[in-house]
Amino acid sequence: MENTPGRDPLVQPRLTRAWYVAATSDELKKGPLQRIIHEVPVVLFRGADGSPGALLDRCPHRSVPLSFGEVIEGKLQCGYHGWAFSAAGRCVAVPGLVGEADKDSRSCRAFPVREQQGMIWVWTDLEHAPDSEPFRFPYADNRDYLTVRQTLEAPAGVHAVAENALDVPHTSFLHGGLFRTDKDRSEITCVVQRWGDRVEAEYIGEARPEGVVGRILSPSGGVVTHFDRFRLPSIVEVEYRIGDENHIHLNGALTPVSDHVTKLYAVVSVRTRVPTWLVRPIVQPIALHIFGQDRVVLKLQTESVHRFGEISFVSTEIDLLGPHILRLLRQAERGDSEKTDSQSYRREVKMLV
Amino acid sequence: MENTPGRDPLVQPRLTRAWYVAATSDELKKGPLQRIIHEVPVVLFRGADGSPGALLDRCPHRSVPLSFGEVIEGKLQCGYHGWAFSAAGRCVAVPGLVGEADKDSRSCRAFPVREQQGMIWVWTDLEHAPDSEPFRFPYADNRDYLTVRQTLEAPAGVHAVAENALDVPHTSFLHGGLFRTDKDRSEITCVVQRWGDRVEAEYIGEARPEGVVGRILSPSGGVVTHFDRFRLPSIVEVEYRIGDENHIHLNGALTPVSDHVTKLYAVVSVRTRVPTWLVRPIVQPIALHIFGQDRVVLKLQTESVHRFGEISFVSTEIDLLGPHILRLLRQAERGDSEKTDSQSYRREVKMLV
Amino acid sequence: MENTPGRDPLVQPRLTRAWYVAATSDELKKGPLQRIIHEVPVVLFRGADGSPGALLDRCPHRSVPLSFGEVIEGKLQCGYHGWAFSAAGRCVAVPGLVGEADKDSRSCRAFPVREQQGMIWVWTDLEHAPDSEPFRFPYADNRDYLTVRQTLEAPAGVHAVAENALDVPHTSFLHGGLFRTDKDRSEITCVVQRWGDRVEAEYIGEARPEGVVGRILSPSGGVVTHFDRFRLPSIVEVEYRIGDENHIHLNGALTPVSDHVTKLYAVVSVRTRVPTWLVRPIVQPIALHIFGQDRVVLKLQTESVHRFGEISFVSTEIDLLGPHILRLLRQAERGDSEKTDSQSYRREVKMLV
Repeated sequence: MENTPGRDPLVQPRLTRAWYVAATSDELKKGPLQRIIHEVPVVLFRGADGSPGALLDRCPHRSVPLSFGEVIEGKLQCGYHGWAFSAAGRCVAVPGLVGEADKDSRSCRAFPVREQQGMIWVWTDLEHAPDSEPFRFPYADNRDYLTVRQTLEAPAGVHAVAENALDVPHTSFLHGGLFRTDKDRSEITCVVQRWGDRVEAEYIGEARPEGVVGRILSPSGGVVTHFDRFRLPSIVEVEYRIGDENHIHLNGALTPVSDHVTKLYAVVSVRTRVPTWLVRPIVQPIALHIFGQDRVVLKLQTESVHRFGEISFVSTEIDLLGPHILRLLRQAERGDSEKTDSQSYRREVKMLV
Repeated sequence: MENTPGRDPLVQPRLTRAWYVAATSDELKKGPLQRIIHEVPVVLFRGADGSPGALLDRCPHRSVPLSFGEVIEGKLQCGYHGWAFSAAGRCVAVPGLVGEADKDSRSCRAFPVREQQGMIWVWTDLEHAPDSEPFRFPYADNRDYLTVRQTLEAPAGVHAVAENALDVPHTSFLHGGLFRTDKDRSEITCVVQRWGDRVEAEYIGEARPEGVVGRILSPSGGVVTHFDRFRLPSIVEVEYRIGDENHIHLNGALTPVSDHVTKLYAVVSVRTRVPTWLVRPIVQPIALHIFGQDRVVLKLQTESVHRFGEISFVSTEIDLLGPHILRLLRQAERGDSEKTDSQSYRREVKMLV
Repeated sequence: MENTPGRDPLVQPRLTRAWYVAATSDELKKGPLQRIIHEVPVVLFRGADGSPGALLDRCPHRSVPLSFGEVIEGKLQCGYHGWAFSAAGRCVAVPGLVGEADKDSRSCRAFPVREQQGMIWVWTDLEHAPDSEPFRFPYADNRDYLTVRQTLEAPAGVHAVAENALDVPHTSFLHGGLFRTDKDRSEITCVVQRWGDRVEAEYIGEARPEGVVGRILSPSGGVVTHFDRFRLPSIVEVEYRIGDENHIHLNGALTPVSDHVTKLYAVVSVRTRVPTWLVRPIVQPIALHIFGQDRVVLKLQTESVHRFGEISFVSTEIDLLGPHILRLLRQAERGDSEKTDSQSYRREVKMLV
């Protein structure tokens, strides 16, 4: 991963013309909620009709975070002097002032917001209106699937977290035994394809993973279909089909808190013959354990990158997706993304798994 | 509050040609005492006659803070090699050295000091001799008054602390119920006047504050006279007269520890018919509670200013004193203060309280 | 100590073409061990034959510290993807990859290492091969001596720690009573001599130190011979002979963790008529207590230097070694050291001890 000349090598690609999950619907209750995206504080609150608003979290008056205040009849009221704002950011009250409160200079910047599928999405570019709608989780509303959600936070940037989430080779080591093992490897073929807005790896000839998770989800085995995908700006996807009956679909919507901290809103949908009351209590703790191991290594990676003052990565051909994810992020940041639907890359790679 | 071009927007006005309270007399006992003013460490100690000295807190020899040492017969002795200094900063001993200790290169910078009314004041400009004497608290020595002192520290700069201390509109919100309330407001007239070295707001037509504090101090009510004042470099003053018998006078001498930390030496003098044994145990805890709320909001304000990298304040006409305080501080920093006794500003403002 | 123009005044001289102790032999067991030298992380591990290797502690693949991994059959294996490295830094395994792992781009930088006298030394210049061998402790292998080792860490740079270790005048103050006292001083002569790679002070006419330590080590007194020495890059030495029978030799090998943190690997060898079972339990706690006092003052010195943003030291003629140590360090850093064997300085100084 070469560094761009003249640029702080630790600054990550920043895509602000994008939708990110700011919170789950459950998290936004009566009071305001502060979230940080790209180091910018955003305050979420529910207006009079219950729909969410998102403002820059700074009162124009004396710079106190509005998230310190209260929501009164759908207006967000600053806790210092009581200035109040609508979900659109208009100043509707300056207590003590004789005259009209609403002036342009007293308004607060408002971010476009969408609430769908239990997630509150914020469009983080204050200068440009949205040119798209937020990602939809394909199986989250499907009643044939058990869907589990989990919010996680990792001490690493979007690129490092996305690569980690979609990387097969590390699973045998870091998570040895839980998912894959380092013994009895066999050679498979991986097909990597990149389009203007996404990259995908398909794994052909893979046996059912021999670790604990594979055995629980698919005790009878069968033909395995496995895809890993990344979509701009920050959606990761892992999809397994094992035999006819088992389908495991994992999505993660990544939100850049800062260059080196990422939130991951995971939505895992499973269709299996194994009873859901059996799947959930066993698979969730294991998944959290796996994520805990990944968090440790991502933290070490971030600390190392800071200590050395550079991102110095040497890749091999089995680093299937990481380099492509970085390429997509950088293209998008420059605004010269290739056409969404035209394929720009296809390659087959052998790997021992 | 617009920012000055070419200047770090977070650097506050720094008035070094000024007297600041470094400590109370009670705090300076047998040993040395370190205090930080404008980020500069100052060591206080008592000379042979008991009067205080103030030196730059760094031994010229190996840069160890002299406050780590001991006071021996009125001399401050470094704890590393025993170099000793007079209150004037002369080096009077270099143990082990054959020959005379006192050389200019071995002397320590000394600050002018005054001890009066239980406070130790330091003149923080090492290049210029004092052109004035420290502020005197007008009622601290008056036996008709109950005087209470309190040292506080706030995580904000002098300007933010002074504005907060003298700001009326926030009291209904941040301290709602304790002092003022947000209900049944009535319109009053405020007269703001600025001179070369101070600014004052007079509130005309104000009723006795309906909160707990007002009711205790003046149960019978009466005509209210209320002034808020700021004096260069950093004295805040709140004065209430309620009826003929009640006079409450609050002074705060602010000491800039750094651009974003301020010490407040409060001297509150009260003359009232209410017995002092009743006033003290009730009013002091409430005052500390109010200050605790202010400290929270000042900390949030400071953090927000740092996060955004700028001081971005939008004022209205009921921000009576804050903009004038900033103007006075900046004028004084540039050295072009207007004449002390000539009035440069007068305006009447309506406010709902 | 004047500052070099155009250079950050807090950056210390950095000698990288040098051997430093990275760890004691005892510390390096089955697993890898991270050590920081000059802010660079180094991972130590034992190869198949038990001899130590030292690599830059960063996996070339994804920058994770190799010290997070495991040693498998003498190879250091990264904990993230299992890449494995020999003690020479060659990549010997990339799990999952079809084909040969060993490519130059995948190798890890290796530091020259020596293990001798129970210490593991690392040569910290990756660009130049060693032009010397590590320092040997002269009495560590001598069976007539009791040798005690102790690893310490001080919050100060190599120069400050070396000066402190070899400085006589501070002992009467900071360690008053333990070693020397401030009373009944007598005048002695000190001979300071500097060569290209070292500086030495000899103290002539010194009485047996009257503190606790001197009385224990040499109850009968006698003629005292006392030398203090500093050798490039970072060896301190204190040598006492008291009468014919008592010889105390203290070496400290200083390792710069960063500009302001130093490790001290002390090797103290003692030959005395006092039984060793008596010496050890009394002298070691006192020595650690003395070091604790030095650590406090060194920490204060470092903090003061940072607060003021400059190293401002005024020396007198009884600061015998500190200024010479700095001169040697700066000469060596510039690469213009004077000839090792030619004496470049000699002076006699009177001192009261």
